[in-house]
Amino acid sequence: MRVEIITVGNEILSGDILNTNTKYISEKLMEIGIQAHYHTTVGDIKESIIEATMFGLQRSDILIYTGGLGPTQDDLTKEAVCEVLDIDLELREDIVVLIEKIFEKKHITIPKSNLKQAFIPKGGEALPNAFGTAPGVFINYNNKLVFLLPGPPKEMKPMFNDTIVPILKNKLNYVIISKTIKTIGIGESSLEEKINDIIKNNKDLFIATYAGDGLVDIKITCQKQNKLEANERINIVLEKLDKLIGKCIYSHDGESIEKVVFKLLAKHKLRIGFCESCTGGLISSRLTKISGVSAVFDRGIVTYSNDAKIEELNVSETTLMKFGAVSKETAEEMAKGLLIREKVDIAVSVTGIAGPDGGTKDKPVGLVYIALASEDYLCALKFDFSGSRESIQNRVSNAAFNLVRKFLIEKNNLK
Amino acid sequence: MRVEIITVGNEILSGDILNTNTKYISEKLMEIGIQAHYHTTVGDIKESIIEATMFGLQRSDILIYTGGLGPTQDDLTKEAVCEVLDIDLELREDIVVLIEKIFEKKHITIPKSNLKQAFIPKGGEALPNAFGTAPGVFINYNNKLVFLLPGPPKEMKPMFNDTIVPILKNKLNYVIISKTIKTIGIGESSLEEKINDIIKNNKDLFIATYAGDGLVDIKITCQKQNKLEANERINIVLEKLDKLIGKCIYSHDGESIEKVVFKLLAKHKLRIGFCESCTGGLISSRLTKISGVSAVFDRGIVTYSNDAKIEELNVSETTLMKFGAVSKETAEEMAKGLLIREKVDIAVSVTGIAGPDGGTKDKPVGLVYIALASEDYLCALKFDFSGSRESIQNRVSNAAFNLVRKFLIEKNNLK
Repeated sequence: MRVEIITVGNEILSGDILNTNTKYISEKLMEIGIQAHYHTTVGDIKESIIEATMFGLQRSDILIYTGGLGPTQDDLTKEAVCEVLDIDLELREDIVVLIEKIFEKKHITIPKSNLKQAFIPKGGEALPNAFGTAPGVFINYNNKLVFLLPGPPKEMKPMFNDTIVPILKNKLNYVIISKTIKTIGIGESSLEEKINDIIKNNKDLFIATYAGDGLVDIKITCQKQNKLEANERINIVLEKLDKLIGKCIYSHDGESIEKVVFKLLAKHKLRIGFCESCTGGLISSRLTKISGVSAVFDRGIVTYSNDAKIEELNVSETTLMKFGAVSKETAEEMAKGLLIREKVDIAVSVTGIAGPDGGTKDKPVGLVYIALASEDYLCALKFDFSGSRESIQNRVSNAAFNLVRKFLIEKNNLK
Repeated sequence: MRVEIITVGNEILSGDILNTNTKYISEKLMEIGIQAHYHTTVGDIKESIIEATMFGLQRSDILIYTGGLGPTQDDLTKEAVCEVLDIDLELREDIVVLIEKIFEKKHITIPKSNLKQAFIPKGGEALPNAFGTAPGVFINYNNKLVFLLPGPPKEMKPMFNDTIVPILKNKLNYVIISKTIKTIGIGESSLEEKINDIIKNNKDLFIATYAGDGLVDIKITCQKQNKLEANERINIVLEKLDKLIGKCIYSHDGESIEKVVFKLLAKHKLRIGFCESCTGGLISSRLTKISGVSAVFDRGIVTYSNDAKIEELNVSETTLMKFGAVSKETAEEMAKGLLIREKVDIAVSVTGIAGPDGGTKDKPVGLVYIALASEDYLCALKFDFSGSRESIQNRVSNAAFNLVRKFLIEKNNLK
């Protein structure tokens, strides 16, 4: 079953925005066992959409379009596709009523331009849009399935999941199962070297690694007749990975490292606090992206300057003078200061040089110390990161979460 | 001149990663006046690359490939393209020497698999790769230009800019100039309504809006014989936009709102501090992504809990009891507390409900107060945001930066 995703939109062609719709649809297709065969993007030009449709029909069994269903004159997907398929558009009174209702809520009479959205290809199916005025369209054209979806992600996503996924699932006679293992503390090339034998000896699985900002994901994909068989094959590989690189694995089910830390903290009923220098609040901010974080987190502090470190965290001026702001000693005093000052069980501090300026020969850009203090424990680790300012900040925050994760696991094992 | 960008890679087709290469190339093409005509993605399968090449040659004048130039058996772009063009690959001793040098540095003898990368299509040009072992390829095939680039962005980007951009520039007899105006405080549909006449009366320009998390960008693109003419046309529209929506424009040259605020603070030699509740450090973190931020920022505080608000910012228990944590009064006391406590000229506080839980009928998810305090000024604004937790947090941080921006502009105008 060859599936082609066709994006219609000048804003994608001109590189103004990333094509996140195609990524989303591709990911969701993989979840039900379909790897997209082609991605195509064309502009908001009728001739281009017609051409893409003709090419698409030649090489694919299923065409999924996004974009170009809006009310303006630039929205031409429906018109172009119908021209190729030689199908007329007909005004559907039931859709007019639906669109009218949306405008009624806003106390506006339906603009003429929006009436365009109530035209549906003859014999086609209108797909309901819970978040906008543009219905989707489903056409079965000589056993080629053609789906037209609106471009805005909040409209496209539920429509894809609620109406298209069930139709496609019905057509499959196999399953694909994917599992993502997330690791930290090992480089991509070292990791690949370590797992090379596993990749070689499991040719029926597709095993790939994806690296970013100090994290490496391992994705294992398996296509089998049924779920049970696929899961069994994947589990055998998982066991091998656990033996080989278990210490570096922080998640077996795709969870972010902050979510893993959040769950560990919640499980052990521990509260955490952060004092951040070079990350400027990124660590606190990542943790508070999680709903319910108040159970484990009540405050953090960004001490960017030396003064702030002295005044807020009671770091001694002597330490700053003798060892500098970016040092093991300062990191430790910061964490201890935070632990004393706040009602937290675990205090984490970071201090470093995120760059691109501010580095010296002795203390280059990327030098970072991360410390963790609890009632009966204190440690500080040194890191040498590289990359852009933003990448270094991300790497530092990942490493800080990993330090907490390891501490919580070891602490728990000791008890 | 019809340009098609062809991405080769299973990781894109399966939705594992976003196609950032295509966005990058498209953006850079626009800068020299070329809008890509087609984006195509196919998997690491020889037949697919052959098919895409055949389609591409039918409809496009220039084909730019990324991916599939690596040393493994899955890297097949060169082989597939040469098969379609009926060109032999020949081992280039000069490239072997280059690759050997890279491995010498690592004290490794060149692996056999990497020798594959020294094969270049007969009559084609090898494009130097400063950051990896895979040279790019340039083939002029009956006046169709074919470029093969490696997939890793750090290798692809410099190769594209250094070798392909000059070749393409040479072929153009026009320029395209783009300008992005960034706005906040006005919805996308209201904005479009307001500027509708401008769009209608400037049909030779392409004017588009892009919205996200409370910000709307207006991109104006103009194609003319020369730069001067294009800039003049754009400037006429810019003047009209300034008159119409000047108050909502925070940048005329694509700068982020935090960068605008940073520059204003630096210009007026003012220091800022943040106390954040529902954004959990996001505002501080966004500001500290800017290099050199220490000139305007030395600390921030995340007061997620009521206790933190009382202890860190001296918010009164009575206020919290009477009005609640999410209230104008609490926001104001937070900002005042921060101003007193810290050596800052401007203190900004946010308190709100980011959701998805924690909302009530009186105080729904998305209700947020942002306050700003300076020596002789205090104000608090109420906002009703909607969206996911992350989107609300982004909107709040955008609104907070905008409040500072407006304050600094007005303050300056008064003086």
